[in-house]
Amino acid sequence: MVERIAILGSTGSIGTQALDVISRFPERFHVEVLAAGNNYEILASQALRFNPDIVVIGNSQYYQQLRELLKDTQIKVYAGSDAIEQVVTSSAVDVVLASIVGYSGLRSTIAAIKAGKKIALANKETLVVAGSIIEKLVRESGSRVLPVDSEHSAILQCLTGEMGNPVEHISLTASGGPFLHFSSEKLNEITPKMALKHPNWDMGSKITIDSASLMNKGLEVIEAKWLFDLNPEQIKVVVHPQSIIHSFVHFTDGSVKAQLGIPDMRVPILYALTYPERLTTDLPRLDLLKGCSLTFSEPDLKRFRNLSLAYDALKEGGNMPCILNAANEVAVNAFLEEQIAFTQMPDVVKYSMENTEFSSSPDLDFLEVSDRSAREVAKDFIIKLTNKK
Amino acid sequence: MVERIAILGSTGSIGTQALDVISRFPERFHVEVLAAGNNYEILASQALRFNPDIVVIGNSQYYQQLRELLKDTQIKVYAGSDAIEQVVTSSAVDVVLASIVGYSGLRSTIAAIKAGKKIALANKETLVVAGSIIEKLVRESGSRVLPVDSEHSAILQCLTGEMGNPVEHISLTASGGPFLHFSSEKLNEITPKMALKHPNWDMGSKITIDSASLMNKGLEVIEAKWLFDLNPEQIKVVVHPQSIIHSFVHFTDGSVKAQLGIPDMRVPILYALTYPERLTTDLPRLDLLKGCSLTFSEPDLKRFRNLSLAYDALKEGGNMPCILNAANEVAVNAFLEEQIAFTQMPDVVKYSMENTEFSSSPDLDFLEVSDRSAREVAKDFIIKLTNKK
Repeated sequence: MVERIAILGSTGSIGTQALDVISRFPERFHVEVLAAGNNYEILASQALRFNPDIVVIGNSQYYQQLRELLKDTQIKVYAGSDAIEQVVTSSAVDVVLASIVGYSGLRSTIAAIKAGKKIALANKETLVVAGSIIEKLVRESGSRVLPVDSEHSAILQCLTGEMGNPVEHISLTASGGPFLHFSSEKLNEITPKMALKHPNWDMGSKITIDSASLMNKGLEVIEAKWLFDLNPEQIKVVVHPQSIIHSFVHFTDGSVKAQLGIPDMRVPILYALTYPERLTTDLPRLDLLKGCSLTFSEPDLKRFRNLSLAYDALKEGGNMPCILNAANEVAVNAFLEEQIAFTQMPDVVKYSMENTEFSSSPDLDFLEVSDRSAREVAKDFIIKLTNKK
Repeated sequence: MVERIAILGSTGSIGTQALDVISRFPERFHVEVLAAGNNYEILASQALRFNPDIVVIGNSQYYQQLRELLKDTQIKVYAGSDAIEQVVTSSAVDVVLASIVGYSGLRSTIAAIKAGKKIALANKETLVVAGSIIEKLVRESGSRVLPVDSEHSAILQCLTGEMGNPVEHISLTASGGPFLHFSSEKLNEITPKMALKHPNWDMGSKITIDSASLMNKGLEVIEAKWLFDLNPEQIKVVVHPQSIIHSFVHFTDGSVKAQLGIPDMRVPILYALTYPERLTTDLPRLDLLKGCSLTFSEPDLKRFRNLSLAYDALKEGGNMPCILNAANEVAVNAFLEEQIAFTQMPDVVKYSMENTEFSSSPDLDFLEVSDRSAREVAKDFIIKLTNKK
């Protein structure tokens, strides 16, 4: 059976790695749709290589350039985020790889879920911002959401075949980021350049900063709640600097299962596309004898306050994770633009959580309002911080 | 549903731990049969506590004493190994925990398999000696063999839900035993007393010596072939002194799964009894944050030749694993009686493998002959060794 795939965010880190792994199984996958935000040149070269039925460029100002580059092909070219939302509902699409980063990836993912598609979910915001709404939509449409994140993929792999067996808790592993052993003072002096060198995983810059600040792990904690129907108390984070064990499931009989591998996103991407089946690849293998020693420690919630804030947001519920996420996007941008220090990012998030209107059961429209408000609150706070300097 | 259990070898290490865990679920398990070899006093006290329908003492000379101890009960008392073989076929038995140690456990296990019972298999010899015969019997009778060994249980747990997904190889973990870092010269000086102190697992003395000499791991390699239908090349051994990860499955997509836990045989025993279901227990939990660091290394086949001999026997096939196992039992006894040195055990095994009649497709009768012959060959060789001193 050929699986027809729409890749949303095809020029990003996950998108390009997905195309790499998909290209290894031409008999198994057909790329039906490629969509990207701005990077029309790479999008065009991907289209020429994979020959999709449709390409969509999110930012309409590149529409003509993209058309020009694909003028000798049969490929249909569309532009704008509405177009992305429409193409994912096409009956010619079986699976949607939702890998548009940030809040803007949410609407297209929801459109695909409503259309009952199988979703390989890389966009974190979908579940972080709108977990309870997504859960309901999935139930109604018969869609299925499969995680692409290595940690959640690990949990899914450990839960396979364990239907009905009670989970005591899960342990999401965190590399701890490059600043694991930095004192609070040293954390204060981190520059964007330092933070963008992530040792273990090849990722985009937003997620790299989130990874260094442990906000990425915080967002994963919130996602895990919705993916695996767990209470906050059942979701633990354990620092594992080697990034070999990708997460653990602790069952109530005392047995623990883990999934391991060298850090390579292509493995969980492929698993999300073929679950529960596994395909044979020639991707690099984990060699247990390579002399590494696997260690585990507790995350320091005092130095890495983002993780603590994420648990708070999860426990609050409602639009609080949405506020956390929006404020964090603003904070990360401000840090990357050297407006605020690394250690001020949690200040921005915390302030926004305390100063944006709370709702315990928001609908999608209210979430959009919350997202915008939280960004305003965060930006105002950053201006105040900057003026203080 | 109440599961009615026959425990063969109830007074041994596995048997007593099984009763411990079974006693925690009175609504779930009923002990129908208890059988032991010689230890009639413990057997009687177990019978008084668990009130089985039948008890059997393998060694008939204790029959009267056992009857006397149980005279105020309704419990039926039988004696002799034939009786053990008969009672396991009873329609009142659902599961047989086959935990009689050594070659003598083989016949009763076969009887239970022929009767189509579910087998929780702790007896190593069943699959080591008669793997190909057992495989055929299981297919014919509709029996199901579930491993009790922690390593094989780990593999089974990792394979749950992975039906049809190709396995690249498995890695059985070995603690490496107490002599992992001993030089060949120091290995030569090991006394039984030193060897019987196993740091991680609570086990009987035969298996403790096998564990220290890596023969135990060799026998597990052979068992894994039959339990999981693997080639010798697909079964690897990795030394993991902490005994926290109980084994790994490496899939062909590059993903690896592992099962972990603190060393406690009650977990895999219970899993074998309830597979694929898990029950909730209050057994001690693995705490990842207890500061241990997990390490892995290659076993040294030059210092621990038994493991290498086991691979040889597996590749030869036929009655060679039977010869290996019989010669090893004799060698372990001779070591425990201080007739030979620790490092001479593989000499005994190797000599017996080279000097016992080989058959590529033995039936059960021929295996019994091979077992006896190999023991004779081994004993003669030991006499020669002893005379040389």
